[in-house]
Amino acid sequence: MQAEIVFTGTELLLGEVINTHAQFLGRELAELGIEVTLHTAVGDNHEALKAILQDSLARTDLLIITGGLGPTEDDLTSETVAALLGLEMVQDDNTLHKLNLIFARRGLPLPVSIKKQVFVPNGAIVLPNSAGTAPGLIVRSGRKTIILLPGPPNELKTVFESHVKSYLKTIAGCGVVMHSTVLKVTGLSESQVQDRLQQMHVTGNPTISYVAIPGEVHVRVTARVNSHIEASRMAEETAVRITTELSDYIFGQDDELLNETVGALLLERGLTISAAESCTGGQVMKLLTDVPGSSRYFLGGIVSYSNELKTDLLGVPGEVIATYGAVSEQTAIAMAEGICRVTGSSLGLGITGIAGPEGETSEKPVGLVFIALAAGDKMFCKRHIFPGQRTGVRVGATNTALNMVRRFLLGLLHQG
Amino acid sequence: MQAEIVFTGTELLLGEVINTHAQFLGRELAELGIEVTLHTAVGDNHEALKAILQDSLARTDLLIITGGLGPTEDDLTSETVAALLGLEMVQDDNTLHKLNLIFARRGLPLPVSIKKQVFVPNGAIVLPNSAGTAPGLIVRSGRKTIILLPGPPNELKTVFESHVKSYLKTIAGCGVVMHSTVLKVTGLSESQVQDRLQQMHVTGNPTISYVAIPGEVHVRVTARVNSHIEASRMAEETAVRITTELSDYIFGQDDELLNETVGALLLERGLTISAAESCTGGQVMKLLTDVPGSSRYFLGGIVSYSNELKTDLLGVPGEVIATYGAVSEQTAIAMAEGICRVTGSSLGLGITGIAGPEGETSEKPVGLVFIALAAGDKMFCKRHIFPGQRTGVRVGATNTALNMVRRFLLGLLHQG
Repeated sequence: MQAEIVFTGTELLLGEVINTHAQFLGRELAELGIEVTLHTAVGDNHEALKAILQDSLARTDLLIITGGLGPTEDDLTSETVAALLGLEMVQDDNTLHKLNLIFARRGLPLPVSIKKQVFVPNGAIVLPNSAGTAPGLIVRSGRKTIILLPGPPNELKTVFESHVKSYLKTIAGCGVVMHSTVLKVTGLSESQVQDRLQQMHVTGNPTISYVAIPGEVHVRVTARVNSHIEASRMAEETAVRITTELSDYIFGQDDELLNETVGALLLERGLTISAAESCTGGQVMKLLTDVPGSSRYFLGGIVSYSNELKTDLLGVPGEVIATYGAVSEQTAIAMAEGICRVTGSSLGLGITGIAGPEGETSEKPVGLVFIALAAGDKMFCKRHIFPGQRTGVRVGATNTALNMVRRFLLGLLHQG
Repeated sequence: MQAEIVFTGTELLLGEVINTHAQFLGRELAELGIEVTLHTAVGDNHEALKAILQDSLARTDLLIITGGLGPTEDDLTSETVAALLGLEMVQDDNTLHKLNLIFARRGLPLPVSIKKQVFVPNGAIVLPNSAGTAPGLIVRSGRKTIILLPGPPNELKTVFESHVKSYLKTIAGCGVVMHSTVLKVTGLSESQVQDRLQQMHVTGNPTISYVAIPGEVHVRVTARVNSHIEASRMAEETAVRITTELSDYIFGQDDELLNETVGALLLERGLTISAAESCTGGQVMKLLTDVPGSSRYFLGGIVSYSNELKTDLLGVPGEVIATYGAVSEQTAIAMAEGICRVTGSSLGLGITGIAGPEGETSEKPVGLVFIALAAGDKMFCKRHIFPGQRTGVRVGATNTALNMVRRFLLGLLHQG
């Protein structure tokens, strides 16, 4: 089965945003065994969009269109599809009802412009969008299937995963399918990861590819074979080998989010956590509180950027800082102990390091970070040198700190 | 002047790599006053590529093609262009000479496959590639200009910057150029922004377009006219009108980063800052400390997620929380006062609200956030209802809090 994708949005042509949809949909469709033959990106222009859709529908039976479903005047997709197929736009009562509820709950009137989203091509299947106000749509006409997805990345993913994937599975046949899994690594550079994996002689099928972002390396394992189960088994087998090789550095697989994993484990064990952050400046707590319901296990914490606050708020003895320095194992441990004492939490993190670009000395380079975890009468502390610049060091330290908590909760962390 | 871009490479369709060329070329061409009307991405397939190039040349006089210039069998671009225009492939002696030199210097024989790169469509202008082996090409035929660029990002940039940019400047000449500026808005939904701007009757040229990400709406103002200076003046004039209309909600323009602006203003005025965060959970401090050198003005702060920490660490009176609630103007003010007292900073932020999805009551909906700023004997506090879900509310509150500091430092914030 083949498909084309049309991305709408003048911002794509102007280079204002990067087209992440192309990658997301490309992978998802490949996994479903659907071959994408063409991508087109077109501006928010009715005539241009109409011409492109017409050409595309002459070539393919399955067309996916992203963007242009929002409330503003430059959102033209559903009207254009309707015009092309000679369908009327009709009001969808469920969508109207949902929008009314959202705004009523906040005591706000329904904005005039948003009412546009309530109209859909006659006969369309409406795909509820739990992440936003514009629903996705499936429009069928003869042999042609057109799937319209909202443009904001989180909304596109939500609608794709909750509705479109299962729909496509039913209409797609079976050829060579692809299965990939991504292992997320922190604390090593891309070339360090590559060197380690090359020694393992992972070659051929599955293939390995790397994407580096500051503070993380994503290792993608992709198997290609003519069965979903076999592809998945092959990719998973290689992923397990890699996880064994890089155990300390792997903090997640695929969509697993470290903060959610840590939160679920804390809840399950009835434990609470707090943090004392220096070089990460609040990033660990920001991530912990990204998770809905985190107030059940996260109490709070202190960003002690200055030495005074380390002493005044966390009780790190002045002599410890004077003798060993603010960036030292001793200070990290005193911070972790201090935050547990202050908040009464079961677990406490203490993080101190040199994020750069300033502050490095001949003994203490940029990237040096000490991370301590206090857990009742147990204390763990590890010294790290994170690769990269300021952002890479901070992200590396944040991921590693949360991974230390995860590994502790799973009984994988050992003292000394 | 208009152009289309064709990106070649099966890896783009499979989602194996992200198309960064689209963004790079989009920006570069917009600056040169060349309007990109269409992007197409096509796999490494001779027939498909030929059909796409044919369609494209029927619509546009300027076509840019990326990728497919390398030495392997799936590199088809120059042959396909030559076939399409009825041109022979001829040997380019300069390229051959250069390749011979490169390999001789390494003591290696010239690989057989690489000799393919020595052949170019007859009459093409060859653009030396100092970052790799495949040169770029400019092929002219009648009114049509086709520019072929190598696929690896660094090679594409090198060839574009050293040859293509100046070439395009001469042919784009004195046509209509485009200038855009982006205003970043927080605290309003996309439809609320549009409703406000529609009342201003901003229509025609400059045009306005919108991009929404959680917690932010980006308003792009684009002017098109036949002079760089005039385009810039027109866009700026409209931007000023919009900024006046939405003043409280605009937190940045173009590449300006709010945390850097706040940091620079604090440094300039010799002031320090600290923060007491509840619903934002450390995100404000994370953003402040993203900036290198932030330890010169940021002292630290407290994430008081639990009510106990609001009282124990920040001295928010228990009666205040009992009477008005943890999410109230009174609590926000006590938090801002408390953090200034604890850290001794000149400015202190207090942020408390309901990020959701839990915790909402009939009087206090998800999105309700109070932000207080203490500055010596001055106290500012504002009630907000941020649109969106948890992430949108938290990002909205974070941007608004930092914007409150920026506006205070610029003398734009008024009490009451």
